[in-house]
Amino acid sequence: MAVITATMVKELRQATGAGVLDCKQALEAHDGDFDKAVVYLREEGMASAAKRASRQVDEGLIGSYVHAGSRVGALVEVNCETDFVARTDEFQELAHDLAMQVVAAKPLYLIVEDVPADVVEAEKATYRAQMEESGKPENILERIIEGKLQKFYEEVCLLEQAFIKDPDLTVNELVKQQNARLGENIVVRRFVRFEVGG
Amino acid sequence: MAVITATMVKELRQATGAGVLDCKQALEAHDGDFDKAVVYLREEGMASAAKRASRQVDEGLIGSYVHAGSRVGALVEVNCETDFVARTDEFQELAHDLAMQVVAAKPLYLIVEDVPADVVEAEKATYRAQMEESGKPENILERIIEGKLQKFYEEVCLLEQAFIKDPDLTVNELVKQQNARLGENIVVRRFVRFEVGG
Repeated sequence: MAVITATMVKELRQATGAGVLDCKQALEAHDGDFDKAVVYLREEGMASAAKRASRQVDEGLIGSYVHAGSRVGALVEVNCETDFVARTDEFQELAHDLAMQVVAAKPLYLIVEDVPADVVEAEKATYRAQMEESGKPENILERIIEGKLQKFYEEVCLLEQAFIKDPDLTVNELVKQQNARLGENIVVRRFVRFEVGG
Repeated sequence: MAVITATMVKELRQATGAGVLDCKQALEAHDGDFDKAVVYLREEGMASAAKRASRQVDEGLIGSYVHAGSRVGALVEVNCETDFVARTDEFQELAHDLAMQVVAAKPLYLIVEDVPADVVEAEKATYRAQMEESGKPENILERIIEGKLQKFYEEVCLLEQAFIKDPDLTVNELVKQQNARLGENIVVRRFVRFEVGG
């Protein structure tokens, strides 16, 4: 069995934000395999995050970002459970990063459920029209349209977008990660983006 | 006839933002009376401002302000005619001051015309109910209600509010003053205010 060193635990803590004991246990359970321990802790974190999701979030911060030149800016409200967490550097960075995300990636909606039904229908009709003469069978067409719709959501919904500072994560995954790290339910409540003449 | 000194001209320029020659002429025309010269230049300024009002405004800035503690923030879009004016310190200060105004004074609407008719009717009905048993004649009641409605507009409309840094000016007058000072039509286009849990 692999020896679990303090350095390994420390690195795992930095990568996942999990506690010392959880990191030690995760490494032991996976014979010191760093990547497997990360996956394991992430899944554990998601599970606790789901448990936390019902708790009340009425604290938080207003994150703001105005791009150099002041022609475009954004505000984001991010909620958490306690003022204590709201004041941490991590939470402040999250709020700021999300405002920067809104400025850079121009989301139109917060979550998939916010996209109006007529917009979804119009998108679907466009995809269908594009493929009309492809001769593909209906069930394949449906699957392609669903795929294109998912891409559309990843473009226009803040929580589905790739995080600008780490495109391997969606914004939703980033929020969940901070949720696990800070041990509190975290919710992006609303955002607004102003652009001169926009 | 009073001697017009350079100091007098300088003070008048600082108070009104008008040009050197205009200030000198205004002081001469009013026998060196500072207050009369201010009123005169303000009226002149308003006249030129009115002339400018039809010109196109598609440049400008996004002003932002987040209060210490990051529990409340605001964005404001302020438009002008040229990028040159948008980049001046005065214009940047105006945009910032307006965002601060929105955070501090919590306007709900931009201008009087933005207040929905049903909100106005509900306000009027409340005022009338408050005075129902006062026995005042109808024409007096009407005047009192109009007065109270004006106070309501001064509370909820950004452009009607007293400017927090100089309550002798309304926000609209502040904008007109900068309009005269910078020689361009300036328009506050929109604002938004986010407060945690608000």
